[in-house]
Amino acid sequence: MDPATWRTYLVTQSSHSAGRDTPTVVSAALAGGVDVVQLREKGTDARRRYRLGGRLRELTESAGVPLVVNDRIDLAAAVDADGVHLGQSDLPIEVARDRLGPDAVIGRSASTVEEAEAAEVAGADYLGVGAVYGTESKDVADAKDGIGPERVGTVANAVDIPVIGIGGVDAENATSVVDAGAAGVAVISAITAADDPQAAAGTIGEVVADAR
Amino acid sequence: MDPATWRTYLVTQSSHSAGRDTPTVVSAALAGGVDVVQLREKGTDARRRYRLGGRLRELTESAGVPLVVNDRIDLAAAVDADGVHLGQSDLPIEVARDRLGPDAVIGRSASTVEEAEAAEVAGADYLGVGAVYGTESKDVADAKDGIGPERVGTVANAVDIPVIGIGGVDAENATSVVDAGAAGVAVISAITAADDPQAAAGTIGEVVADAR
Repeated sequence: MDPATWRTYLVTQSSHSAGRDTPTVVSAALAGGVDVVQLREKGTDARRRYRLGGRLRELTESAGVPLVVNDRIDLAAAVDADGVHLGQSDLPIEVARDRLGPDAVIGRSASTVEEAEAAEVAGADYLGVGAVYGTESKDVADAKDGIGPERVGTVANAVDIPVIGIGGVDAENATSVVDAGAAGVAVISAITAADDPQAAAGTIGEVVADAR
Repeated sequence: MDPATWRTYLVTQSSHSAGRDTPTVVSAALAGGVDVVQLREKGTDARRRYRLGGRLRELTESAGVPLVVNDRIDLAAAVDADGVHLGQSDLPIEVARDRLGPDAVIGRSASTVEEAEAAEVAGADYLGVGAVYGTESKDVADAKDGIGPERVGTVANAVDIPVIGIGGVDAENATSVVDAGAAGVAVISAITAADDPQAAAGTIGEVVADAR
């Protein structure tokens, strides 16, 4: 599994899914061609995320798409996910590698060159860099104000691991993020809250492919 | 390690430690004879709890006292704790057993006979039952109103694993909790916020020993 090939990285959040449940949205997004799914669901307890994770594992496995779990290494292991995504205030990358093994894909949130370089040295397989733009999903972004595509490019130039731009990214602005140096884009609301998540996923995937 | 022998179970919470840091409070409590320490620290991010957990692991190991981590199986494994304490909304006991192994001590919060029986069947080694009394540490208790010592006794009678009463327990009321059927008591503020945490730990340990 090579994160450098990921164009569209779906992050789940039931509270931004227009009243639909997350498996429904993820099924549609997988049909639309997303390349990886992250179980996030901030504000949902571990027991519920565990149950939801089992369902998403089935859906992603059927689609041949990797599943990554946000924050929690134990939850990632429990649902047999392909990896974990760790924020700056989560457990160290080394702990995740030790628990999940050499084949796990481990991502790290970074918004500065310093954070990005530290994550690369510690063994991260990719970086989630942002928030690129101000976003209404502020509770699910790691920064309140957007850092902008230019900073995404600065971070991407500082490391050899692929960068996924996250935060307020949609079909309109994804080109700027990829032009700046991101390998792909992570998307929440632009897919989960779309009238047609499958179509939205397809469109964003095309935009990223064209921009590469 | 036999949780049935635990008289005084210290739960850490920096925000209820009268401005002292948790290692200072834990050192004093260990000198006062607490039998087990749980790293809780609600509201503190995983990275900080990881660092604190490493420090508490050293202190508890020197004292020959087990260390348990609240909620997170990954954090428990990362700091080489002796076990984990899981709330009703945390990951299943079976997941913890699978990840931490047969020698780990796994506790579960329970406030009803049904929850207690389910936890015992799932392989819990002890139960934290409460909140026994209404407590000012509401953010660190699993119930807002006290269930009372009588209910603690009802739950304790329903299972063979030891019950630790938690929530608003102090030197004044610990006797009632043990008389009702608890093997020991879990304490936060009555030790962490005490003028002299060592003396407070010693007093509560004596009260429980006398009531047994």
